[in-house]
Amino acid sequence: MIPPGARLADLAEAAGVSTATVSRVLNGKPGVAEATRLAVLSAVESLGFQLEDHRGADDGFIAVMVPEIGNPGFASFATELSLQLSAAGRHMILCTAGPGATTEVAYLDALLGVEIAGIISVSGTLADRLASHDHYERIAAAGVPAVFINAHDPKIDGAFFSTSDAEAIAMSVAHLRQFGHERIGLAIGQQRYQPARRKMDAFLGLGFTREAIVSTIFSVEGGQAAAAKLLDSGHTAIICGSDLMALGAIREVHARGLDVPGDVSVVGYDDSPVMAFTAPGLTTVRQPVAALCQSAVGALMSAIRGLPTDSTEMLFHPDLIIRQSTGPHHGS
Amino acid sequence: MIPPGARLADLAEAAGVSTATVSRVLNGKPGVAEATRLAVLSAVESLGFQLEDHRGADDGFIAVMVPEIGNPGFASFATELSLQLSAAGRHMILCTAGPGATTEVAYLDALLGVEIAGIISVSGTLADRLASHDHYERIAAAGVPAVFINAHDPKIDGAFFSTSDAEAIAMSVAHLRQFGHERIGLAIGQQRYQPARRKMDAFLGLGFTREAIVSTIFSVEGGQAAAAKLLDSGHTAIICGSDLMALGAIREVHARGLDVPGDVSVVGYDDSPVMAFTAPGLTTVRQPVAALCQSAVGALMSAIRGLPTDSTEMLFHPDLIIRQSTGPHHGS
Repeated sequence: MIPPGARLADLAEAAGVSTATVSRVLNGKPGVAEATRLAVLSAVESLGFQLEDHRGADDGFIAVMVPEIGNPGFASFATELSLQLSAAGRHMILCTAGPGATTEVAYLDALLGVEIAGIISVSGTLADRLASHDHYERIAAAGVPAVFINAHDPKIDGAFFSTSDAEAIAMSVAHLRQFGHERIGLAIGQQRYQPARRKMDAFLGLGFTREAIVSTIFSVEGGQAAAAKLLDSGHTAIICGSDLMALGAIREVHARGLDVPGDVSVVGYDDSPVMAFTAPGLTTVRQPVAALCQSAVGALMSAIRGLPTDSTEMLFHPDLIIRQSTGPHHGS
Repeated sequence: MIPPGARLADLAEAAGVSTATVSRVLNGKPGVAEATRLAVLSAVESLGFQLEDHRGADDGFIAVMVPEIGNPGFASFATELSLQLSAAGRHMILCTAGPGATTEVAYLDALLGVEIAGIISVSGTLADRLASHDHYERIAAAGVPAVFINAHDPKIDGAFFSTSDAEAIAMSVAHLRQFGHERIGLAIGQQRYQPARRKMDAFLGLGFTREAIVSTIFSVEGGQAAAAKLLDSGHTAIICGSDLMALGAIREVHARGLDVPGDVSVVGYDDSPVMAFTAPGLTTVRQPVAALCQSAVGALMSAIRGLPTDSTEMLFHPDLIIRQSTGPHHGS
């Protein structure tokens, strides 16, 4: 629907498209490229019009917790959640907890003083087995529904949606074994985080030993340090717990004058936006971000309407995106 | 200072470092690697301790507005602002406006109902000359101080800190001219945005014509489309308005069977986190994100304390980060 007071011609000029295209976008018709659709929506907003009137502050904000917004994996969740929540008529406020910044606990305490309608936490403290989970019990006691992505604690009242780490490891290992790799290592972040622990368990379950796992931190430097150890012990392929770790692993291989994938294959995790442009393009596991966010927002809206929540964790299947960082093992 | 109730040994074990290192970090002593410092801070938080007690919700949140959190350039600002605001004893809530999501205007209307102590807007609607700026007049009338990064409107009461687009263009052009390039093109996003317009003006001021400027949108696809036009008209070097546009430009050069930088040189803008890992590594302009954020937070804290704000725009100098996407022009 055309916003009240707006003229099709003005919108078309601001967006640099035809009036027919503007009309098609505003009426939700198919056959419009995503970039064009965004240009039209952006023009509507830039001219000061509201697309819909049902987004009121009365309904209360939805607080979304993410650990590090600088990590492109988490930024993808934040972007998708902002779109899905907006489509559900809600404002998202993003709370970026992290070392040195405001903690998740402090955010939650502060937000309880504000009218918050619900919480979505992505890989938050609930995924940290060393962290206290008491604050989520307080949230539940205060009657604020909470939904969790990539974190599960059966003692907490909420809905839980996660990418299957076991599947991610299984498909990465199968891909590398098809290329003839046997000495496969796992470079992972801190063991206290649930996704790291689950990937380790899955990896051990596939017949690998603890010697093939190096746990550092989820960063480029962490990946490089882990890869150094795995290369020293003769591994020819490295599965990493994040794309940033994989970039660090590739850097270590290159620093030794070796080639990826000629000498060593590397697999990432997340499929962050620009991984198709790295040297080499990164073979990586893509989380089903849109599907996870859609389920999380749907569950939260139901809980806000007072419907009961099922606290069974739902596991989503990831995809292996094959690019150029993996290849055949050349026996030595 | 060690948080009350915490034991050095527990923190050291959780962080995987020595007790001496934990002590050094908590007492703010130098000589500790950044990754180690973050590991210790992360351990303190994961064990449920608060590093400092002065962060109260009573002081009110600081709302930070960014247009797209999926764009790594904006994510860098969000990360840095969360650290700086936390150091200033404030909680940041991040409002990610964008096409199809909640608009900046809707956020501001909703936030006025909550206790907000101040606003920092990064490349927001104030940078959009087609957008209404009335909402920032309402914010000022409501007595909420606002600070702007990379956006300026002298009619609005606030403090303004921007990277110099003119300098960014001047250093990019000088670098390419040193390599012998004369047919230099500018691939830029929508002209209605202030940083785009300022780069265009600076480019024209250096003796280039309007034919050497192609305006599309700030995305990989926008960069590829702009590069196609600039290559068709015989340009040998392309300066892009964002790193994502530069990746699109490189993709277009590769799609034509040409080499970067052998045949065409490409310069980006932002120095997003993984640009050192792209193929080829991207020569790009780095905004002084930390300095901009430090000034913005300092100005906001002064304004919150009731000190008068100077609305003169402060321009910050960027750095040209030279990697492998630029090289000598081979005359044809």
